[in-house]
Amino acid sequence: MSDLTLQAAEAKRASRRLAIIDSDTKNSALANIALRLKENAEKIFDANDLDIKEAETSGLETPLLKRLKFREAKLSDVCDGINSLITLEDPVGKMSLHTTLDDGLELYRVSCPIGVVGVIFESRPDALVQIATLCLKSGNAVFLKGGREAKNTNKILADIISSAGIEAGLPEGWLHLLTTREDVTAMLALNEYIDLIIPRGSNEFVKYIMNNTSIAVLGHADGVCHTYIDRDCDPDIAVKVAVDAKTQYVSVCNATETFLIDRQAVPKVLDSLAEALKASGVELYGCPEASRLLSIPEVEEWHHEYLDYKASIKIVEDVNEAVDHINKYGSGHTDAIITQNEETADYFMSAVDSGSVLVNCSTRFADGFRYGFGAEVGISTSKIHARGPVGLEGMVSYKYKLIGHGDIVDDYSAKRKTFKHIRREVK
Amino acid sequence: MSDLTLQAAEAKRASRRLAIIDSDTKNSALANIALRLKENAEKIFDANDLDIKEAETSGLETPLLKRLKFREAKLSDVCDGINSLITLEDPVGKMSLHTTLDDGLELYRVSCPIGVVGVIFESRPDALVQIATLCLKSGNAVFLKGGREAKNTNKILADIISSAGIEAGLPEGWLHLLTTREDVTAMLALNEYIDLIIPRGSNEFVKYIMNNTSIAVLGHADGVCHTYIDRDCDPDIAVKVAVDAKTQYVSVCNATETFLIDRQAVPKVLDSLAEALKASGVELYGCPEASRLLSIPEVEEWHHEYLDYKASIKIVEDVNEAVDHINKYGSGHTDAIITQNEETADYFMSAVDSGSVLVNCSTRFADGFRYGFGAEVGISTSKIHARGPVGLEGMVSYKYKLIGHGDIVDDYSAKRKTFKHIRREVK
Repeated sequence: MSDLTLQAAEAKRASRRLAIIDSDTKNSALANIALRLKENAEKIFDANDLDIKEAETSGLETPLLKRLKFREAKLSDVCDGINSLITLEDPVGKMSLHTTLDDGLELYRVSCPIGVVGVIFESRPDALVQIATLCLKSGNAVFLKGGREAKNTNKILADIISSAGIEAGLPEGWLHLLTTREDVTAMLALNEYIDLIIPRGSNEFVKYIMNNTSIAVLGHADGVCHTYIDRDCDPDIAVKVAVDAKTQYVSVCNATETFLIDRQAVPKVLDSLAEALKASGVELYGCPEASRLLSIPEVEEWHHEYLDYKASIKIVEDVNEAVDHINKYGSGHTDAIITQNEETADYFMSAVDSGSVLVNCSTRFADGFRYGFGAEVGISTSKIHARGPVGLEGMVSYKYKLIGHGDIVDDYSAKRKTFKHIRREVK
Repeated sequence: MSDLTLQAAEAKRASRRLAIIDSDTKNSALANIALRLKENAEKIFDANDLDIKEAETSGLETPLLKRLKFREAKLSDVCDGINSLITLEDPVGKMSLHTTLDDGLELYRVSCPIGVVGVIFESRPDALVQIATLCLKSGNAVFLKGGREAKNTNKILADIISSAGIEAGLPEGWLHLLTTREDVTAMLALNEYIDLIIPRGSNEFVKYIMNNTSIAVLGHADGVCHTYIDRDCDPDIAVKVAVDAKTQYVSVCNATETFLIDRQAVPKVLDSLAEALKASGVELYGCPEASRLLSIPEVEEWHHEYLDYKASIKIVEDVNEAVDHINKYGSGHTDAIITQNEETADYFMSAVDSGSVLVNCSTRFADGFRYGFGAEVGISTSKIHARGPVGLEGMVSYKYKLIGHGDIVDDYSAKRKTFKHIRREVK
């Protein structure tokens, strides 16, 4: 067996033990991880300095350098994050169904960890800490592969987190760090050991992962998000929200890429919207009509993620055309409507087939931290398993537990007994 | 575009409409389906007679002929099933999370249909009715492919169900019947339109599907189920349950294939268990020790699904060895423990990594109907999305709905506002 296969087999064994570890042990491990991270702060910063120097030499862009940098402020943030994770309810062992099948035959559905999870993420050392601790709290063993620019920082963080966990009672092999692209490729074949892969990164990369493994994949390729401005909108809200949705952080998946404007809202909102976006530095592209009205170039492709100070504008006949456009050209990620009309809002939210649908607020809210999940391991555009921002609750599966007293199926097949199926309330 | 692609595109459009159809319309459609099935009983029986004649000519085995036969009793059963489905709560539109992110910024997580589901199933016409109506109730458009032996019966059932649904207000194209194996292969490539595939059938067939599509697959390949007899068992319960678990219906996935016996239970249970199983016609195979004690052949492969009047017996040191054996050689489907010791039972249920874990009852209980789900579309051994028997609740996804009043992320990034994240109770 290859080294990676041996590691995967070890992670699988560790996952069996993690599944039966109590909440207190997991929380002590989290506390010990925060402690050991702080104690080793200088070593971590030294490793990060190495990464930063290499990145500067190779000419990494400033926003990426900023994400790569891991100093006091970020260490303090991730330790705060760990402490808030400790206070969150254990997602494992929660009952979601209880049915009395018959006298003395009780069925329960109880949450349990998924098993072994592989997460591939960008060059952000704080992401490593967040993902590792989310996996720990949800009882999953984890394979981590971070961006290569952060390799020195990732190495020391993974070492500290892994051993601090083991010191507090977690099984050996609960966390493994992968360091090469070849390891990622090899991991895609280990469906015997790995239960779920969560890729974060570029569109092409996520598609590559999805098409090259039979392991379940949770994530999203692109984020072509829309904000639809309805005839019954408050124009001030429309402009304010649109600017935030486009410009608050342009290089992220939940930034709006396309504005759809109800034809009847054009007189009251089109000019002020275009002005406000231009004033924030946004270049606009339009449908033929918007292009003519605003003197802007025409859009070439509606399913397009700019990830930049650029946006598309389309004038639509009504909310139906907006919904159809979103379902056709969107990526099922996050889409918003601006309207004061509750009925229109309800229709939009039901008919748009996306992980997050929003009314009168910015698409940028679609995020695990803002949704109150503590942190997220990713955002899923799949409709299977977890959808939208994925926090602790998305990292568990469940099992059915049936407790009887010698019950046999033949009694029911032969009609000597009949099922009662009494659904009990669960908290 | 091929005919199948056109059908898939039509199903996708239908799924968008199904997603916003109210419960009353879905229930009227179900009632109309039951009505039209009864009205067309003679035509259905005639079609079934054709299938039965062909099957007899080609020498189909009696148990399979029995499953293929669709006459008054089965028609009445499926109509009863439809009526009970009508009384079940709509799984769509149920809220599972409500958080106040801040004043006037409310987050909801609400269930919604998956979209378009492809189900491939055995030559059992009643399965077609059950699957089609489960998909309808959960708001999913569906592609059905039944066993070829039932082709005439499937054709007329699908026609009646599809048109009875449309008559009651469902969109055109909500149900499609596939008739050839080539259609199934072609369907595996339609990831743009089909959200989930549920294959039922042989081990090899399910594995083939899983390895040949990037669409999510829900199901199970094999069912190597275990019953572990603990030192603290009641021997009468052990024998009674073991016989049911093995012999109540041998050719199904939840029948027990391997009995694990705690060494300390051997004196009180081994002989009577072996006798009872032999008396029911079961051939036994054992580990070296059991082989010697019972004069039976040795087991060749522990991960083996007999689907027959055959079973393996292994003597283990304790519950730990039993758990390890199950996690190593089982298929994560259904496993039971026979014990009067609650602590041992709890440990077994937490540590065994299977969809259903049972105490003092037969593995044959692991089934959607017996669990009270009305019916099942299949049993899943995946830990992603739905696990165990999959009924209505497994056929939905969810989306997040966020309702604000002009809220922008920049207010929170710039610390002018802070999230409150108040978790509200949901029913």
